[in-house]
Amino acid sequence: MSTTASVFLALLCILLLPSTYCGGSKILVVPVDGSHWINMKIILEELHSRGHEITVLRSAKSWYIPSNSSIYTSINVPMLEDDADRDFYITMIQDVMYRRSYPNFIRTFYQQHLLTSALGDGHTILAKSAGKILEDVVLMKRLQDTKFDIVLTDPALPLGVILGSYLKLPMVYNVRWMNTGEGHLTIAPSPVSYVPISGSELHHEMDFQERIKNMLHYLYSVYEQHFIINPAYSDLFQKYFPPGTDFLSLELSADIWLFRADFIFEFPRPTMPNMVYVGGFQCKEAQPLPDELEAFMQSSGEHGVVVMSLGTLVSALPHGITEAIAAVFAELPQKVIWRFVGDKPSSLGKNTKLVKWLPQNDLLGHPKTKVFIAHGGTNGMYEAVYHGVPVLGLPLLFDQFDNLLRLKVRGAARMVEVRSLTKDNFLEALKDILENPSYHENIQRLSQLHRDRPMSPMDTAIFWIEYVIRNKGAAHLQSAGFSLPWYSYYCLDVAVFVLAVTGTSIWGFIFVCRLLCCKRSSKKIKPE
Amino acid sequence: MSTTASVFLALLCILLLPSTYCGGSKILVVPVDGSHWINMKIILEELHSRGHEITVLRSAKSWYIPSNSSIYTSINVPMLEDDADRDFYITMIQDVMYRRSYPNFIRTFYQQHLLTSALGDGHTILAKSAGKILEDVVLMKRLQDTKFDIVLTDPALPLGVILGSYLKLPMVYNVRWMNTGEGHLTIAPSPVSYVPISGSELHHEMDFQERIKNMLHYLYSVYEQHFIINPAYSDLFQKYFPPGTDFLSLELSADIWLFRADFIFEFPRPTMPNMVYVGGFQCKEAQPLPDELEAFMQSSGEHGVVVMSLGTLVSALPHGITEAIAAVFAELPQKVIWRFVGDKPSSLGKNTKLVKWLPQNDLLGHPKTKVFIAHGGTNGMYEAVYHGVPVLGLPLLFDQFDNLLRLKVRGAARMVEVRSLTKDNFLEALKDILENPSYHENIQRLSQLHRDRPMSPMDTAIFWIEYVIRNKGAAHLQSAGFSLPWYSYYCLDVAVFVLAVTGTSIWGFIFVCRLLCCKRSSKKIKPE
Repeated sequence: MSTTASVFLALLCILLLPSTYCGGSKILVVPVDGSHWINMKIILEELHSRGHEITVLRSAKSWYIPSNSSIYTSINVPMLEDDADRDFYITMIQDVMYRRSYPNFIRTFYQQHLLTSALGDGHTILAKSAGKILEDVVLMKRLQDTKFDIVLTDPALPLGVILGSYLKLPMVYNVRWMNTGEGHLTIAPSPVSYVPISGSELHHEMDFQERIKNMLHYLYSVYEQHFIINPAYSDLFQKYFPPGTDFLSLELSADIWLFRADFIFEFPRPTMPNMVYVGGFQCKEAQPLPDELEAFMQSSGEHGVVVMSLGTLVSALPHGITEAIAAVFAELPQKVIWRFVGDKPSSLGKNTKLVKWLPQNDLLGHPKTKVFIAHGGTNGMYEAVYHGVPVLGLPLLFDQFDNLLRLKVRGAARMVEVRSLTKDNFLEALKDILENPSYHENIQRLSQLHRDRPMSPMDTAIFWIEYVIRNKGAAHLQSAGFSLPWYSYYCLDVAVFVLAVTGTSIWGFIFVCRLLCCKRSSKKIKPE
Repeated sequence: MSTTASVFLALLCILLLPSTYCGGSKILVVPVDGSHWINMKIILEELHSRGHEITVLRSAKSWYIPSNSSIYTSINVPMLEDDADRDFYITMIQDVMYRRSYPNFIRTFYQQHLLTSALGDGHTILAKSAGKILEDVVLMKRLQDTKFDIVLTDPALPLGVILGSYLKLPMVYNVRWMNTGEGHLTIAPSPVSYVPISGSELHHEMDFQERIKNMLHYLYSVYEQHFIINPAYSDLFQKYFPPGTDFLSLELSADIWLFRADFIFEFPRPTMPNMVYVGGFQCKEAQPLPDELEAFMQSSGEHGVVVMSLGTLVSALPHGITEAIAAVFAELPQKVIWRFVGDKPSSLGKNTKLVKWLPQNDLLGHPKTKVFIAHGGTNGMYEAVYHGVPVLGLPLLFDQFDNLLRLKVRGAARMVEVRSLTKDNFLEALKDILENPSYHENIQRLSQLHRDRPMSPMDTAIFWIEYVIRNKGAAHLQSAGFSLPWYSYYCLDVAVFVLAVTGTSIWGFIFVCRLLCCKRSSKKIKPE
């Protein structure tokens, strides 16, 4: 290539670099441990590759977040250090944060009471952790002196929200869940008539009975927020924040909400100008499989392959269930790859390959893959959509029921609850997906829509994080409604006033009319 | 350049072409005449350059829309052909569509009654026009046989909405105004506590009194929609649409709403997944000025230039006002370019150049321009923001008051009402903008934010029009709430049921308690 061409190409490359690039900023990250960290880490890798300096706050006893990393510096903070607190907290998350007992909460009133009380205790522990961090003078001085440009946090747990607000830094959320459910419920108007409350296992087209159920879920979540969660933080806010600060006002102070959702999956509903949708940002094109796995895939011939992975929950399935599943697989003409830990089922067929780990994204993107059997975790669902593979869901807990429901109503998934799984109903559901082409067509349509957007979800996430850095916040996108007290927000004060004026006027009118009538009739009586 | 490099560059160019390109589609455009056409035409030019076939429906007596064009084929439709209808309609638009009498609607009750009645008559005329088109068998067959891929319309007038729904075609709106005001009021939840109703001249941070005013505006707009506008179309809907069709259901059937707004201008408020913001899509970089004008600009030296243009309304200013304005200009050290039609004011200074037309965009983008004196039309406001020039607004009618208010509360504009303009208050306002640097800083900040987006507003508009073409609609982005009756949407049926059950339970409980008490006391009485 000639020198002129090289210079031209170099210039072209510079021109093609996003003009909005703003590398070299200091980003304070307050992640949530566990599966939430997986998502956050992918964004951090991208931010690091763009030259940003990243500092991650973690508990010294973190489960997933390593202290040493080539992409960030970590700081240990006094958070959930007490073993009893940690154990309690794990149980609380599993039991409460996505409460399966909700649908029957009248029947299991006592259970619900226990869960609610555990939720309160959990938030008290979190408030205690936050308090410890805020009173750690050395740590706080270090954070203040670093002069971070932005706080990036997952508000599923409130530490990042509290810390970001205390440090008065611009704040971006990487969010789907917040304390009372799906994040939209906190920030956007959510008409209960067509916005299903998290955990209700309802979809957006509800009949009268379902709308009643949804309303009860909604009222319960309001009760929980105001009477269980808010009181846990009142002492902390009184000590460290201006008077009148409450949990909601801190949560709503974020500049941009990077929402891990896409409306091909989430039901269409009201949103706000500072919400940006980045659902599926972790998805990527499939890479070639290892030779042995590729040979196995090809050996399936025209029948293709069933891929089964229940994530980290695989060991939780009872023995009887795994036997039933293995027996069903043995009857299939397809080959099966099953991510499996434990004793090999006796009914296992020759067509089924058990593995301890599988390259899920690469398998889902393989043309031989026909069905994905999954527990319904968000990441897996978006990967299935991205690669266009129909899903047979075996939901167990958390948001898995609601996630699978979203694919089911689009005709792209079936669901078999683990507690009622039998050989028959599992076989029927699996055969249905394998033999009825509509599942494949529907998820292919979702896949096409999911990929058809002006900018990839990951680029969108990075653009808006850097937008907040460049513009030192995005206050102009925050609604004025956020700062109103609830009775003003819902216009109750105005309604009371208007009704009072109208009522008084009508009463006055009637009073005057009666007065006039009385006068007239007394006049009439007089002559008699 | 070597052959290898050329081939490489050609390949690169192909790669850089949007992968989602879908030229060659058939687009039916139902525009709104007058200033709305200016916006629509810019989009059509872009669509034409991308290879789409465009058909525009126009009245044979259209004011602005030419029948012959190199970018589209036009079809004359029987719409507002009757001169009396047209004259009435023009008056109606001017008087009603953006009613200046709103703020005082209790005081001017009789005026309001006249305007409301005119609004009803106007919609009756529109419904008559739509009826004529639907019963024109030859025209309808021609439209049906063409097999359009999409209808692109401005729903400020309802013909496109009615026609698109009747032809059952995917529909995209190029929208800001609809029949009862700003389009958001039709599609998105609009809490009256922080969403100012169009024409209220309120902003998003309202005190109690302002919220009462806003509520009254809201209630009035609901009354207007249901009792004035809807009845005008009931016969038409009964004849040509399935039972139960109403105006709102047709309006909400659009796939994508390209909204001519940006939240650096519009107050942040709830939005919906199928709303796309393209405010300022008509703005472009300034081109060099003609030599004479450039010399005039440069002659202003360090003081710079004031640009004044009131659009097509310039001749509407009373003589006394133009004299006052001219006298103020004469006192300035700045040069002034004034788009002016009529008799030259006697007080005109040597620094002021009167012109019949001016290249507004190129002047606003010129570094010597210091202030833009404008009537507050949307296009001009977005051009001022785009080029970062502070505004002195002289609003006259329509949305001009609300538009200017949006820049004023951001500290980027001052407003002087024409009816109360004097030499003194005009001079004070103009000097304030020229001498106080905050106006320039604030509009520069807005300009920076307006330009900082993942994709330009025009590219965004084109992407979503082609998205609807590619995917044959975007039903998956339409909210399920759109199809609910109003009492279900607002959960009134559920509330009545829940209250009834709660009330009955409480009554039952009290009844049983009383029964038990009575029994006990009667037992107590017996032994005595």
